[in-house]
Amino acid sequence: MKVGERHYHTIWLNEDGRSIDIIDQRWLPHEFRIVTLKTVDDVAVAIRDMWVRGAPLIGVTAAYGVAIAMTSDASDEALDKVWEVLHETRPTAINLRWALDAMRGFLRKLPVSERVEAAYGKAAEIAEEDIALNRSIGAAGLEVIREIASRKKPGEPVNILTHCNAGWLATVDYGTATAPIYMAVEEGIKVHVYVDETRPRNQGAQLTAWEMNGHGVPHTLIVDNAGGHLMQHGDVDMVIVGTDRTTANGDVCNKIGTYLKALAAKDNDVPFYVALPSPTIDWTVHDGIKEIPIEERNSDEVTFVQGRTVDGSISTVRVSPEGSPAANPAFDVTPARLITGLITERGIATASPEGLKALFPERT
Amino acid sequence: MKVGERHYHTIWLNEDGRSIDIIDQRWLPHEFRIVTLKTVDDVAVAIRDMWVRGAPLIGVTAAYGVAIAMTSDASDEALDKVWEVLHETRPTAINLRWALDAMRGFLRKLPVSERVEAAYGKAAEIAEEDIALNRSIGAAGLEVIREIASRKKPGEPVNILTHCNAGWLATVDYGTATAPIYMAVEEGIKVHVYVDETRPRNQGAQLTAWEMNGHGVPHTLIVDNAGGHLMQHGDVDMVIVGTDRTTANGDVCNKIGTYLKALAAKDNDVPFYVALPSPTIDWTVHDGIKEIPIEERNSDEVTFVQGRTVDGSISTVRVSPEGSPAANPAFDVTPARLITGLITERGIATASPEGLKALFPERT
Repeated sequence: MKVGERHYHTIWLNEDGRSIDIIDQRWLPHEFRIVTLKTVDDVAVAIRDMWVRGAPLIGVTAAYGVAIAMTSDASDEALDKVWEVLHETRPTAINLRWALDAMRGFLRKLPVSERVEAAYGKAAEIAEEDIALNRSIGAAGLEVIREIASRKKPGEPVNILTHCNAGWLATVDYGTATAPIYMAVEEGIKVHVYVDETRPRNQGAQLTAWEMNGHGVPHTLIVDNAGGHLMQHGDVDMVIVGTDRTTANGDVCNKIGTYLKALAAKDNDVPFYVALPSPTIDWTVHDGIKEIPIEERNSDEVTFVQGRTVDGSISTVRVSPEGSPAANPAFDVTPARLITGLITERGIATASPEGLKALFPERT
Repeated sequence: MKVGERHYHTIWLNEDGRSIDIIDQRWLPHEFRIVTLKTVDDVAVAIRDMWVRGAPLIGVTAAYGVAIAMTSDASDEALDKVWEVLHETRPTAINLRWALDAMRGFLRKLPVSERVEAAYGKAAEIAEEDIALNRSIGAAGLEVIREIASRKKPGEPVNILTHCNAGWLATVDYGTATAPIYMAVEEGIKVHVYVDETRPRNQGAQLTAWEMNGHGVPHTLIVDNAGGHLMQHGDVDMVIVGTDRTTANGDVCNKIGTYLKALAAKDNDVPFYVALPSPTIDWTVHDGIKEIPIEERNSDEVTFVQGRTVDGSISTVRVSPEGSPAANPAFDVTPARLITGLITERGIATASPEGLKALFPERT
């Protein structure tokens, strides 16, 4: 999407045909930095330390990581090694695993001598597929926004709340949860987005707000605590969030706090949608709360906050007292019963085994 | 309660018998600063800019503010003036109004010449009453903790989640929501407190965590987003929060985000209690969501975060992009249907008109 006047993707192959460029998202919204990744270690660090984040973008970055690995050693052992190294960087990201499996499965069948070019070709294909998927998700979600807009008085915007960043920064372009929003804007529908700040990493305040700002979408930043109050007072017409992992029964594992917004939406009859490309569906899991292990991240993410000081430098401040320990579960699971619909590239499914099977019959 | 080895109140009269000292809570948890208030303007700034906060402490501070006003002019006009000036500082704080009404009502009946000493006496009485109230709330809430503790295996703590700071820093001593916790600790019951950080002002991270730390209560800081996940996994035995204003039907207006925790508690069968001294009950309001105006505070509270830098200074950093507006509703209303019980100084009431009337029959 646009950053000011220019259109960007989040990741692209350089002219050397080997290294890739990414937007280093750690400095957003304060600085727009582009970084070149040349080695598997570069890619592993970029994924683990969240220079790139978001399930689809992690998958594409890992795919290019496999391609980079092939340039120094294209053997089966090297393929297994890079699979392990990159899988370990974010073990709960189902899309990471999907991309690594796709790359390994495809390359294994080829002679070693053909693997380098084939790997770059396949990674580019995964990137292009991501954009196409997101546009399909956008088209499906756009129907919901259109329908709400049709019931609005002239001039009244459709108010959409979103949590975390399932925006174009989390994908190659368009985003998942934001694709319907960007496509509504393209169509001239008046929208307004409530952006949850999304503690502890503030992806809403730092990334989603930056995206909306860059692309010119009207929006208001709120703390994660505020959404329930806004819904009680009719200020939210719909919620759209992304997901790191959706189970076969329609439970959604997404950024910590998603569950609380889903409860508030249910309590106030606000439709709650989850946007997801089908690779984030984990068909082997049938009870998200019991079966999905939740990543516990470093407690420094809770006790310290990064931002820009008055002198313009990026700095980190400690918020809580030295002696107080903190816990940092990174995700939670929203049960299917709280979800109005799962917006996929094939259309909108009810959050149920039947709903998902109807759209993805090849999985039954 | 204790700060290290020494026992403190949050407010006290100085030896001069005129000025008062407070803990300037803006610098906690990083610096423990005590400030002297000598004029009505000092008191107004301290309340408005939240050097002191918490319904009961605001009330006591305002009461001393009235006493300070009497030292320069003890006329009826001066009484009305100080009532207006102090009431404007935090217009939604019902306890502020209660304390101002109590002071004015009491002083008006007295000859002007007796008002100064009488005002200081009355303010001291309100402060002492607050401590007594909190100990009564503590005793009532302690019964709930005892009952949960009796069902625990030996060595297992009672896990209590709290939001914002309804601790001793919000009162003169003991706190409201924390009084049962401190009294459980005194009794030797093993407790562990999950402290919600409470964006945007971080009163949990900065004040409640500091209190627990100072008094030696085991605790873990979490982001506001995490509570639902913990409840889903059985990690929370009960929730206790405070309130700025409780309606005659048992709705609770408290710090933004309280409603979301109440929804999660209900969804996971976790008991949800609200601790309140009866002066925070507004007997004139019967529907909290419709009738209580919610204070919209400065959006800088959302976009900037204060903390301590590595060099030890207190600094403020901007988290979100310059062009993104923010909204900052300070409170929300938790409907009575989500509340297990209202812990008052007279015992625990069900959150309903009947429950409250049974404990406060003089109000019917």
